[in-house]
Amino acid sequence: MSPERFRRINEMLDKRQTDLTVAMENVHKHHNLSAVVRSADAVGVHEMHACWISQDKRRVAGGTALGSQNWVKTHHYSDVEAMIRRLREQNMQVVVTHLSDESVDFRELDYTRPTAILLGQEKYGVTEKALAMADQHVKIPMVGMVQSLNVSVAAAVMLYEAQRQREQAGRYDTAQISAEERHRVLFEGGHP
Amino acid sequence: MSPERFRRINEMLDKRQTDLTVAMENVHKHHNLSAVVRSADAVGVHEMHACWISQDKRRVAGGTALGSQNWVKTHHYSDVEAMIRRLREQNMQVVVTHLSDESVDFRELDYTRPTAILLGQEKYGVTEKALAMADQHVKIPMVGMVQSLNVSVAAAVMLYEAQRQREQAGRYDTAQISAEERHRVLFEGGHP
Ligand SMILES: C[S@@+](CC[C@H](N)C(=O)[O-])C[C@H]1O[C@@H](n2cnc3c(N)ncnc32)[C@H](O)[C@@H]1O
Ligand SMILES: C[S@@+](CC[C@H](N)C(=O)[O-])C[C@H]1O[C@@H](n2cnc3c(N)ncnc32)[C@H](O)[C@@H]1O
Repeated sequence: MSPERFRRINEMLDKRQTDLTVAMENVHKHHNLSAVVRSADAVGVHEMHACWISQDKRRVAGGTALGSQNWVKTHHYSDVEAMIRRLREQNMQVVVTHLSDESVDFRELDYTRPTAILLGQEKYGVTEKALAMADQHVKIPMVGMVQSLNVSVAAAVMLYEAQRQREQAGRYDTAQISAEERHRVLFEGGHP
Repeated sequence: MSPERFRRINEMLDKRQTDLTVAMENVHKHHNLSAVVRSADAVGVHEMHACWISQDKRRVAGGTALGSQNWVKTHHYSDVEAMIRRLREQNMQVVVTHLSDESVDFRELDYTRPTAILLGQEKYGVTEKALAMADQHVKIPMVGMVQSLNVSVAAAVMLYEAQRQREQAGRYDTAQISAEERHRVLFEGGHP
């Protein structure tokens, strides 16, 4: 590895937000998955989570993710319960995006807390199970004729609100990642 | 038209931000165009602008735009100069998204002013001509390994910053749209 690249990866790792993550429930279109990973990488998410109904979608497309999938590791689950259980073990608040009148405006939440943003399937949204297990239901306000945003767009709007709050709170100023994880990424050159 | 639908469209029109728009320079992938229109509709953009190098891309895909293209009219141009001239005639500040060190953080701008957000092509970004004619160059901060966001994601992050500022400034509380335009939309059922 060139010294320049070594420095670049170290700088990236200094900004990683190990207590901010995205969890995708049955999101399946490649261009959406790719765009989500790309945005997650951009705000410093280090690991993501994904569950799928079928077993054959266990990868994030290379194309539009532009290699970001090598830098944001994705954990896979076969059901949403297992995924949310894992997030809880990490003391994450599980914030489920859902377009209902009971959901609160997404900007009302504190994303400097350990947070997992859960996104739903392109057509059907999140499942009842995810809603039941959530700590919070949030929505992004919309004043037009269409009912919902594209899922990768919703992910990015949420992630950049988290970025805004964390920036203000100085959370990008001190490295959070463990020495072991830094070593692993530097010497394996990313997530396999 | 049912009274319910009439009321719904009127409510949407009350929130339209006639002095906020999106201009797309050679953005050509259907899923991106669709996602941009959907986000624009969601924050109350009433009309958009687009120019293409070739002439054969003059439509926004129906699929993932979910009908929003019927509610956000798009003006088409064959070159970016004509597009920006038109925006200037409407006294818009032209904000060009561009990933360079000279660009300012997108949150530093005042989007309560009449504003056009100009987005660039998926692979090559905005042209030199657009950069030269711009009032502002802005970028969305990124701390990961990947250099750029998906274009529809960048559009949405910018638009929701505009929405946040305009919400705070009470710009969604008073209708802006002209009586003529309201009448036209109500009786034509959207943009043809
Ligand atoms: C296209 S939407 C699903 C629409 C589905 N008909 C529903 O009502 O949930 C796909 C996903 O995008 C996210 N999403 C889209 N628009 C959103 C909004 N305004 N607020 C919060 N999340 C949103 C959610 O994660 C949602 O599950
Ligand atoms: C994939 S990018 C183009 C990348 C191109 N290589 C470049 O350097 O401009 C496509 C468009 O998305 C928008 N975009 C992507 N990431 C952005 C960011 N971080 N800040 C501002 N705009 C961005 C811009 O409109 C850009 O023209």
